[in-house]
Amino acid sequence: MKRKFDILIASNELKAEAFLSEIEGAHPLFVCAIGTTETAKIPGISAAGSNPQITDYTPPADAELLLLGKCKCINGVPITPSGIPTPALITMSALRLANIPVLIANSGLKIEPHIPFLNLGGAPGKDMRTGHSVENTKEVLQRSIIAGKQLANTTDYLIIGESIPGGTTTALGVLSAIGVKAEGKVSSSMPDNPHFLKTNTVNLGLKAAGIKFGSLKDDPIKAISCMGDPMMPAFAGLVIGAASQVPVLMAGGTQMTAILAVINALNPEILCNVAIGTTRWIIQDSSSDIRGIVAQISNVPVLAADLDFKLSKLSGLKAYETGIVKEGVGAGGASIAAMAKLSGAITKNMILREIEKNYEILMTKR
Amino acid sequence: MKRKFDILIASNELKAEAFLSEIEGAHPLFVCAIGTTETAKIPGISAAGSNPQITDYTPPADAELLLLGKCKCINGVPITPSGIPTPALITMSALRLANIPVLIANSGLKIEPHIPFLNLGGAPGKDMRTGHSVENTKEVLQRSIIAGKQLANTTDYLIIGESIPGGTTTALGVLSAIGVKAEGKVSSSMPDNPHFLKTNTVNLGLKAAGIKFGSLKDDPIKAISCMGDPMMPAFAGLVIGAASQVPVLMAGGTQMTAILAVINALNPEILCNVAIGTTRWIIQDSSSDIRGIVAQISNVPVLAADLDFKLSKLSGLKAYETGIVKEGVGAGGASIAAMAKLSGAITKNMILREIEKNYEILMTKR
Repeated sequence: MKRKFDILIASNELKAEAFLSEIEGAHPLFVCAIGTTETAKIPGISAAGSNPQITDYTPPADAELLLLGKCKCINGVPITPSGIPTPALITMSALRLANIPVLIANSGLKIEPHIPFLNLGGAPGKDMRTGHSVENTKEVLQRSIIAGKQLANTTDYLIIGESIPGGTTTALGVLSAIGVKAEGKVSSSMPDNPHFLKTNTVNLGLKAAGIKFGSLKDDPIKAISCMGDPMMPAFAGLVIGAASQVPVLMAGGTQMTAILAVINALNPEILCNVAIGTTRWIIQDSSSDIRGIVAQISNVPVLAADLDFKLSKLSGLKAYETGIVKEGVGAGGASIAAMAKLSGAITKNMILREIEKNYEILMTKR
Repeated sequence: MKRKFDILIASNELKAEAFLSEIEGAHPLFVCAIGTTETAKIPGISAAGSNPQITDYTPPADAELLLLGKCKCINGVPITPSGIPTPALITMSALRLANIPVLIANSGLKIEPHIPFLNLGGAPGKDMRTGHSVENTKEVLQRSIIAGKQLANTTDYLIIGESIPGGTTTALGVLSAIGVKAEGKVSSSMPDNPHFLKTNTVNLGLKAAGIKFGSLKDDPIKAISCMGDPMMPAFAGLVIGAASQVPVLMAGGTQMTAILAVINALNPEILCNVAIGTTRWIIQDSSSDIRGIVAQISNVPVLAADLDFKLSKLSGLKAYETGIVKEGVGAGGASIAAMAKLSGAITKNMILREIEKNYEILMTKR
């Protein structure tokens, strides 16, 4: 696989290289879109919290970690049920190393973070099995387009990440409603990807909404309203608003493909200015297939930060190499941006050392 | 009075010229801090709304006008009791002419605007005569410092404006608590400045709070909590967070002096990176004295956009020359920034023509 600095080019080599040379040396803004959904509380769906009920706290705690270097709404940092720390630790470390500014965008939280955040409207998401997942999708999309336009005018390019537990299941829901074959292809924060549970949840949602695979091909807003989560219209709107002016790096794993499908149905022309940035753990994951989903939608390039925690001295980080967590809070995209900003002077090893330093400080505090 | 482009240098010539050369050709971000206070509903205090009860709608409507070019939460645009349009019309026109991005920051509104906005915490302000005007002052200040730091990292410099009816009375309150002599010196959106009513209101507030002139000299946070308004801790925090990294233009009239006094008591060293930007109507106002207040606090320079509506074909704009409105929503600072961005290629006459065009469009729509 081709690479530039410690960034792997996972698909569409020519466009990926063009994108990388556009962002090299440039000064980006990192925006993290956050929300919560009741879908995350279905047992077995999400590992983004030590138990399903606590997933409401994960996005605001991740947001606090990015801005403050510590959480306020919970003690310690968000962890998986087996105690592995949130990928926000990677994001925070990469952004701080490269002095990249952060803005948090809320489009539907149950618990608000104790920090400044952009309010994009919206409300916490409902259980997808009701067939009515998201309120005010169109209004949130429109507000987010306005915000994306203004933000694009302040920066060389935008990196957009997300934090929403249950997000790969809602992604599968939206992809299915739009008619993209993603069954068995979305990733998971768990080492054993619960594909059967996700498919079953999506099928219940489709049935409750009275829709079928592909029947909302031309109505992506309804696809989100029925099957998605509240982060999606915010994320899609920010991309649409910004990408007509500046490059946008969509920072995330297979969740990005649902947003890509929405944008492709609304404003396909802006996708020439877009790339997906993720981690090596996603593109090498045998239980998911980000490239297989993207290829059905658009030829946007996929980049991956070649993060490698095998040699970490901290077991909580080493565990990432076993396939747990993999991605989230824009960890891969933030790492790519940090490396690109200083033309490779920030390496994956420097990022790992910074993560270890920050993780040790946070564990001592706790 | 010295000038550069159509910008008047109203005080501290050398520092003003240095500030202007720093911002010339630079790409700023305009942030508008908004909030509401019950103090505005005291009859005769504010002309920022067609009647005192409607002042709750003025800041969100101003914010919508800046971002959307039209209001959503009210019909038409905010007007004074005699029908004169909001200065947000000037701000919006200047920012659009120069393609300057806008971010709205809310720190205590009764009515939320239908647009994306930065949430800085806080709650709507209470009547100053209770002696308990603002809640969570310290928390809002701290969040705003964090936001200011991140925003400064995205832009060449920051312009910060405000919209809060009743703001000159709360400014007089805070200045009095800190011990700055401002009685008879704060400006007014009315042609006849109700100095007696303002002084009386402030005296009732001081009494209710159990404080005296100057007794909160070393506790500016308490001065805001007792006598101020919810816009103040947001504005002060944004300046403190940003000005250690980039220049900051505090865009407003005599309200800026209260914020200046707060910053001077908390972080005086950052004021070397700060200027006040206002309108000619403020610096030539015989019923107020911005320079006389500033001189008691700090030697930050005062700049003024040489806006002149005498020859406007629209009576609503011509009325600005009779001393009504004068300033607000960062109108002066936004005009200064527009002129500086293109090194004078945008003139005061071009701004007036743009305002007339936008005002006519808005009147037709209504």
